[in-house]
Amino acid sequence: MQGLSCGTSRIVGCRFSVYPMADNFVEIIKGALEEVNTAKVWMKTDDVSTCVRGRSEHVFDVTKAIFTNAAKTGVHVVFNGTFSIGCPGDSDGDTYMSEDDVRLNEEKVQQERVEVATQFSLYPLNNPDYMQIIADQVAVADGHGTFTKGVHYASRLDGDVNNVFRTLEEAFYNAAQTDERSHVTMTAAVSANSPSTKDK
Amino acid sequence: MQGLSCGTSRIVGCRFSVYPMADNFVEIIKGALEEVNTAKVWMKTDDVSTCVRGRSEHVFDVTKAIFTNAAKTGVHVVFNGTFSIGCPGDSDGDTYMSEDDVRLNEEKVQQERVEVATQFSLYPLNNPDYMQIIADQVAVADGHGTFTKGVHYASRLDGDVNNVFRTLEEAFYNAAQTDERSHVTMTAAVSANSPSTKDK
Repeated sequence: MQGLSCGTSRIVGCRFSVYPMADNFVEIIKGALEEVNTAKVWMKTDDVSTCVRGRSEHVFDVTKAIFTNAAKTGVHVVFNGTFSIGCPGDSDGDTYMSEDDVRLNEEKVQQERVEVATQFSLYPLNNPDYMQIIADQVAVADGHGTFTKGVHYASRLDGDVNNVFRTLEEAFYNAAQTDERSHVTMTAAVSANSPSTKDK
Repeated sequence: MQGLSCGTSRIVGCRFSVYPMADNFVEIIKGALEEVNTAKVWMKTDDVSTCVRGRSEHVFDVTKAIFTNAAKTGVHVVFNGTFSIGCPGDSDGDTYMSEDDVRLNEEKVQQERVEVATQFSLYPLNNPDYMQIIADQVAVADGHGTFTKGVHYASRLDGDVNNVFRTLEEAFYNAAQTDERSHVTMTAAVSANSPSTKDK
């Protein structure tokens, strides 16, 4: 990994599911996956969730693309997952760390317009300053214009899927920069096309 | 709170959603909620998730009951949420801490038989021994016979919904016992009636 010294040179993972609230959920999920280029991430799906691992930018690129493809069907779809960096003992998928930083799905997904409501929580582990790290990243979200309000145990983001995922990625990236061995996780529930009135 | 000295005297919360993969998801969610007695918890639902707060036993009682009611329809349903204890600054719902420990939905839910596949992760915050705390609770799950295997970033549980929620509750409770001000969160994705082959 010579030449890469920042936190993104450490492997990032996301274990997530996409839940389409529709009878044809299998078809929607399969369709969403087929359209996404996953060449730069390690990926495995089981009966509960999907795990993608690799460079941070590709993990966010792929998860955003899968969710957006499912959401653009117009069906009520929720992405619910946990991003993770620095988990001790993590090694599978290390070969994917040699990929370059060109995102394979970004251009296409930037053309989509999907409004989302999101609740996310950062968990910096083994760090006595964790509450300040969280507060700093809520301030970053506020600067992006995506932060709406705090709720119990989470912060709420609203806006276009591309803007919201940008905030999620930056908040996660920044929180992981505290030191080179930091272990940080971040949960996110991203909802599109809900029939409920938005509770901003 | 005089007379209560153990960890369960601290307020516990869960922010969760139940996702029925069906066109009539609204009906299934409403039906599941109507059947559950939520008198002993603070509860608020928005367009992304539901938050319940109160004594640990009632938070687990209510979340299990809502999920089980939705799952017993036979539709593919997933519960995805984060349990939390010790979040600094938490005070809403404190009045519910004076409720007794009799679970209002347990008897009814014990009569249901719903097979579930679960992935959960414990996050003890601000604790240098957090990896050992996690390992200890995986051993507890193993002792319950619900633990199936470790996967990236999570542990897998399989079995009846009542057994799996018992493991989740005990793992969470135990992890919170390290000291009286510990802050612990636990994510859980609990899936029923998936058409995918179980990947035990």
